Amino acid sequence: MGRIDGRALNQLRPVKITRNYLKHAEGSVLIEMGDTKVICTASVEEKVPPFMKGQGRGWVTGEYGMLPRSTEVRKPRDSTRGKIDGRTMEIQRLIGRALRSVVNLEALGEITIFIDCDVIQADGGTRTASITGAFVALVDALNKLKAQGKISRIPLDSFVAAVSVGIKESNILLDLNYAEDSTCQVDMNIIMTEKGHLVEIQGTGEEKPFTKEEMDQMLRLGEQGIKELIRIQKESLGELSGIIGDEGNGSNSSNK
Amino acid sequence: MGRIDGRALNQLRPVKITRNYLKHAEGSVLIEMGDTKVICTASVEEKVPPFMKGQGRGWVTGEYGMLPRSTEVRKPRDSTRGKIDGRTMEIQRLIGRALRSVVNLEALGEITIFIDCDVIQADGGTRTASITGAFVALVDALNKLKAQGKISRIPLDSFVAAVSVGIKESNILLDLNYAEDSTCQVDMNIIMTEKGHLVEIQGTGEEKPFTKEEMDQMLRLGEQGIKELIRIQKESLGELSGIIGDEGNGSNSSNK
Amino acid sequence: MGRIDGRALNQLRPVKITRNYLKHAEGSVLIEMGDTKVICTASVEEKVPPFMKGQGRGWVTGEYGMLPRSTEVRKPRDSTRGKIDGRTMEIQRLIGRALRSVVNLEALGEITIFIDCDVIQADGGTRTASITGAFVALVDALNKLKAQGKISRIPLDSFVAAVSVGIKESNILLDLNYAEDSTCQVDMNIIMTEKGHLVEIQGTGEEKPFTKEEMDQMLRLGEQGIKELIRIQKESLGELSGIIGDEGNGSNSSNK
Amino acid sequence: MGRIDGRALNQLRPVKITRNYLKHAEGSVLIEMGDTKVICTASVEEKVPPFMKGQGRGWVTGEYGMLPRSTEVRKPRDSTRGKIDGRTMEIQRLIGRALRSVVNLEALGEITIFIDCDVIQADGGTRTASITGAFVALVDALNKLKAQGKISRIPLDSFVAAVSVGIKESNILLDLNYAEDSTCQVDMNIIMTEKGHLVEIQGTGEEKPFTKEEMDQMLRLGEQGIKELIRIQKESLGELSGIIGDEGNGSNSSNK
Amino acid sequence: MGRIDGRALNQLRPVKITRNYLKHAEGSVLIEMGDTKVICTASVEEKVPPFMKGQGRGWVTGEYGMLPRSTEVRKPRDSTRGKIDGRTMEIQRLIGRALRSVVNLEALGEITIFIDCDVIQADGGTRTASITGAFVALVDALNKLKAQGKISRIPLDSFVAAVSVGIKESNILLDLNYAEDSTCQVDMNIIMTEKGHLVEIQGTGEEKPFTKEEMDQMLRLGEQGIKELIRIQKESLGELSGIIGDEGNGSNSSNK
Amino acid sequence: MGRIDGRALNQLRPVKITRNYLKHAEGSVLIEMGDTKVICTASVEEKVPPFMKGQGRGWVTGEYGMLPRSTEVRKPRDSTRGKIDGRTMEIQRLIGRALRSVVNLEALGEITIFIDCDVIQADGGTRTASITGAFVALVDALNKLKAQGKISRIPLDSFVAAVSVGIKESNILLDLNYAEDSTCQVDMNIIMTEKGHLVEIQGTGEEKPFTKEEMDQMLRLGEQGIKELIRIQKESLGELSGIIGDEGNGSNSSNK
Repeated sequence: MGRIDGRALNQLRPVKITRNYLKHAEGSVLIEMGDTKVICTASVEEKVPPFMKGQGRGWVTGEYGMLPRSTEVRKPRDSTRGKIDGRTMEIQRLIGRALRSVVNLEALGEITIFIDCDVIQADGGTRTASITGAFVALVDALNKLKAQGKISRIPLDSFVAAVSVGIKESNILLDLNYAEDSTCQVDMNIIMTEKGHLVEIQGTGEEKPFTKEEMDQMLRLGEQGIKELIRIQKESLGELSGIIGDEGNGSNSSNK
Repeated sequence: MGRIDGRALNQLRPVKITRNYLKHAEGSVLIEMGDTKVICTASVEEKVPPFMKGQGRGWVTGEYGMLPRSTEVRKPRDSTRGKIDGRTMEIQRLIGRALRSVVNLEALGEITIFIDCDVIQADGGTRTASITGAFVALVDALNKLKAQGKISRIPLDSFVAAVSVGIKESNILLDLNYAEDSTCQVDMNIIMTEKGHLVEIQGTGEEKPFTKEEMDQMLRLGEQGIKELIRIQKESLGELSGIIGDEGNGSNSSNK
Repeated sequence: MGRIDGRALNQLRPVKITRNYLKHAEGSVLIEMGDTKVICTASVEEKVPPFMKGQGRGWVTGEYGMLPRSTEVRKPRDSTRGKIDGRTMEIQRLIGRALRSVVNLEALGEITIFIDCDVIQADGGTRTASITGAFVALVDALNKLKAQGKISRIPLDSFVAAVSVGIKESNILLDLNYAEDSTCQVDMNIIMTEKGHLVEIQGTGEEKPFTKEEMDQMLRLGEQGIKELIRIQKESLGELSGIIGDEGNGSNSSNK
Repeated sequence: MGRIDGRALNQLRPVKITRNYLKHAEGSVLIEMGDTKVICTASVEEKVPPFMKGQGRGWVTGEYGMLPRSTEVRKPRDSTRGKIDGRTMEIQRLIGRALRSVVNLEALGEITIFIDCDVIQADGGTRTASITGAFVALVDALNKLKAQGKISRIPLDSFVAAVSVGIKESNILLDLNYAEDSTCQVDMNIIMTEKGHLVEIQGTGEEKPFTKEEMDQMLRLGEQGIKELIRIQKESLGELSGIIGDEGNGSNSSNK
Repeated sequence: MGRIDGRALNQLRPVKITRNYLKHAEGSVLIEMGDTKVICTASVEEKVPPFMKGQGRGWVTGEYGMLPRSTEVRKPRDSTRGKIDGRTMEIQRLIGRALRSVVNLEALGEITIFIDCDVIQADGGTRTASITGAFVALVDALNKLKAQGKISRIPLDSFVAAVSVGIKESNILLDLNYAEDSTCQVDMNIIMTEKGHLVEIQGTGEEKPFTKEEMDQMLRLGEQGIKELIRIQKESLGELSGIIGDEGNGSNSSNK
Repeated sequence: MGRIDGRALNQLRPVKITRNYLKHAEGSVLIEMGDTKVICTASVEEKVPPFMKGQGRGWVTGEYGMLPRSTEVRKPRDSTRGKIDGRTMEIQRLIGRALRSVVNLEALGEITIFIDCDVIQADGGTRTASITGAFVALVDALNKLKAQGKISRIPLDSFVAAVSVGIKESNILLDLNYAEDSTCQVDMNIIMTEKGHLVEIQGTGEEKPFTKEEMDQMLRLGEQGIKELIRIQKESLGELSGIIGDEGNGSNSSNK
């Protein structure tokens, strides 16, 4: 089976990460995965939510939005409808968890980092592109804090990236575009660290339940995609890459 | 390591399913898993949402709520706050997907079934208990439709149940209660059909990323729990059990 | 005229009060009046709303909800609609006033008690059942506070209970069920203390205005029902009954 | 005991009803009861809510609001807060029920009348003044419909008016102003037809429960006030008064 | 061309300002411009919004509303719809800016003045009438503050008033009523001080763009109307007029 | 006086218009004016709002948003706050009016065009940049409709563009950036057609009222800026420019 856009089953779409995309944010990235384009910013606020005050720990939180015409059919603004839809909430929570999983919140100190992921053009995989791009914006924001002497080291345990995999007509596909995503039987989002440890896995077989063997295949394919994405993150970050996770603290079990 | 409540690592809490719990609903169940108690109802409406009209297919949708004092600390009502929180939305969407995965929506016809899961007492695992209980309520509602001649057979491809597993201090635990849930490093919810096929898997290692080996162990333990839960569903349904999935249509690839 | 369910005109439906129904709440009751079933909880919070701070007085507030399928036809959740409907607001305010009328708020001290009444099955009279049941939950919560030494005595001046009466085809009926409620011409809710003093009376003759003679008859019938309900509250509370109102302070004119 | 403003216990405040107060509304009244001033309008819409379509019956619905500075302390707008408070909802529902009780909805036909009561200055008794004034606005609107040939007669069974009574330091007071209202122990709103039949009664003894004897005294005093108010309504309506309730149909038992 | 109501093109409608219209507000005015009637109140709160605390400066903010039946067709309440519409927001912001432009906020000190403009009858020009009337209410409120010794002088640099002008079939019209407003091609609102300085100008030619010559003509006509309105404000304020702007501080460049 | 960024007083910032910026929208533009960057899309929906059905005329409506970190300090999302702020509403309405002023809605037919302007980086003048960019996106969308044969000609009477001018320390400045905008005394937004006709003018002198002479100077400077912006629009549109306004219908007086 060939793929709609001619890719191999195990091939990512072209990925491009543009750092320092916006002027005001401490970290800002435009990530493009094929036709999916997301602006990811990391904004520093030097305080924490009320319920965390005085504990000496920081917080990372995610928000997500889509421009009304990022999609094929115009989508009314959440702000006009007066409420955030369930899908958006789910993605916001996912982005927050994904990035917190690699941040040492104690080492961050009483600082909040807002991750905003705004999709300007959507063609599938917006949540995974958001996470992969947001990680790079986060590194830039943390580096700025370090340069200002507000933290003594980059409090990141590891790289983290995310990719989707799916099953369509018995084929396992990496990095689904929208046409694939809307017709596949099984859809899985995988978030992984550089060492291949799982930060989050979400698989759904609403159309057709899947076996553990299929799950294993999807995981292997996802891991391969993640490794490639982390390589691209590193390329984009250049020498900044070297300072992540090098303190060798393999666990951040106290970060929540 | 012993568990707080003296259970073995691979042991479910006591499960009790009370059918026909409420008078008005077409299907209604009180499910108790240890101290977690959820009222699950299945309500039939003989029409579908506007966007599905005229397609000859049905719909199953889930809603979820918690009584304010189902929890240790009183939780303000969503209705008072004027909006549904992200966790609730996530669970509502999960319940809907889980049940739709085993319903043949074409065979259902233009009927909507509302699944309401209301937690009256919470001690961990409310979303998985909701799904396990709601399946039984759904069978009762469908059976009523069949008795009324509105459908010709029970349009269910399989049993489905859900359970949580987690990692706490290197132990893999089945069916976490609240005390375990709030202190474990990895938390996974597994939804499976009777044949052991995965309908949904959601695992999060915000505290500590997990390996594929750990994931495999969790899956195996989850499968064992699901088998036991489906056995209890069958016991509760009695002779109604026999009419589910017996038409042998292993796929419902057209149900969405 | 016989009643739909065979009761005498002046007969209550079977009443059952189950104390300690839920695990977490300081007081929790399942009250059943015929097919009407309400979970009433009393939750203690050891502070008062901002506008009452520093006055040394406590507060009691009521909330009310219905499970979506507590009713014959499924009722969308207030939380989904994004606002509380007028009927719910009216009932919430009524519950709060009814219970505050017998609490000595000075003796309570700077403590708030949240009364939550959640209808799991509705067959008429849910607001009156809520008040009758909530009083028992309140006693349990206050008793717990006393046991913890946080209050020196149970700050209750009297028992309080509530019942509905109505006029249907010239008959005066006690404790209307839903079928009666929706077809009667006059509908009245009466809340009374043990001594037969009125705490609240709300009568409406939207269908047909009523005379003062009819009003008197309704009041007499209501008083008879209240006396029976307070007898059942006492039975349920057992020895706790003895400590309510025995300090002989017939007035709590300073409680608001 | 003398009253704050020198009135006798059983004396209404000065009442003034100005008809045709606004230009656009089919009926509009400024009612002044002492310092309480309310603009009441009756607006005709020649259709009914969707759930009533095709039944040949009309509807009357009430809304209520207060100008932000109608009160001693400025009250934020409901529209700014984004929701209507419970007290406003309660009053809106009361106004609607009160006026519907005297309208023959069948004779009205498929017409909706919106009653808007907007308090421009508040000094106690705004809900009862609203009802008394709105009745006059309603007559004018109905009369306009009759003049246009859209209804064949004024479909009103009776006059209706409302007044408050209360108990303060053992005295029974008629028509409480704000200072009295906020310090009385018992507060009762009475809505009555010309024949002295009760349309609605709401009494609350949150501060101090009241006896049936006190209730009877309040009712008698309220009836006296209502008779005086209906006399003033008639005076204001002049010859229009004669055409109300003259068809002698003592019951409108089918109006809901 | 004659105007609908017989006025000359450059003629204001009859203007009437009634001071001390309501009992509770520090300043309150009923302004009538033809059939447009607005209640304007100025309410003093002796604190400022959180973001202004400690700066020693005051604040003036505007709110605007319309009674549902102030208009030809009944307009649903913003509070019922749960949000304020765009037009209302625009007007609220305009009223606030217009009045702040002549207030010396430093001399006011940490005091907030709420300007509420509520339209009870609408016939075009409600926003300009609101500003003209609100200025008078503001003077009364400030005078009360001065009488109480809370400010040492009336911190107003100038009179301010507002008027609309428009182009209809090549004629330039002053002070449009609703019939004119809804049929004119160009609509402009002008807010000016006594010296003829512009505080705000808003012109819109959605129907037909306009030339600079037309704009100049409109401005000249507007200035003439404003001068007349300020004369009427002065007449209404009587001797209070003398104390405004007499300290000769022609600029309040530091007021924001 | 030199300007912060070295520009002459009458000099625009560098302007760049990128057409076809997004894949899905019928028209999409990235407009950059200095550091202000706005994505403008024009989306076609082949129906009109309910209140316009059957009149044979089209509609153009505007929406506006800012990415949370488009600004110096992160701005919470409107969708999170649950409502749109007043400034956003004002801008949305302005964008809609500005574009409708040059569209012949009859010639458009029953089609709605949604204009979405989303600021990705803000440095002053976002509303004027939105209008200037949106016009180009609108041309592309209309051209697509023409190519599809859905309209017979481009129903545009004229080019339209917008620019800000202001007074700062007695200097008149063209095209204010944020630093200038937040410190100027007078701020004016001008929207003009190619012939120099005014579509909208909004000037505010909250800090310091301005004279008619200053107003004239601002208008002249604004006109000069608009001419330059329309030149840039034409350059960007290339040969498409030729087909706008060439039918010579100088008026669209029937377009509302």
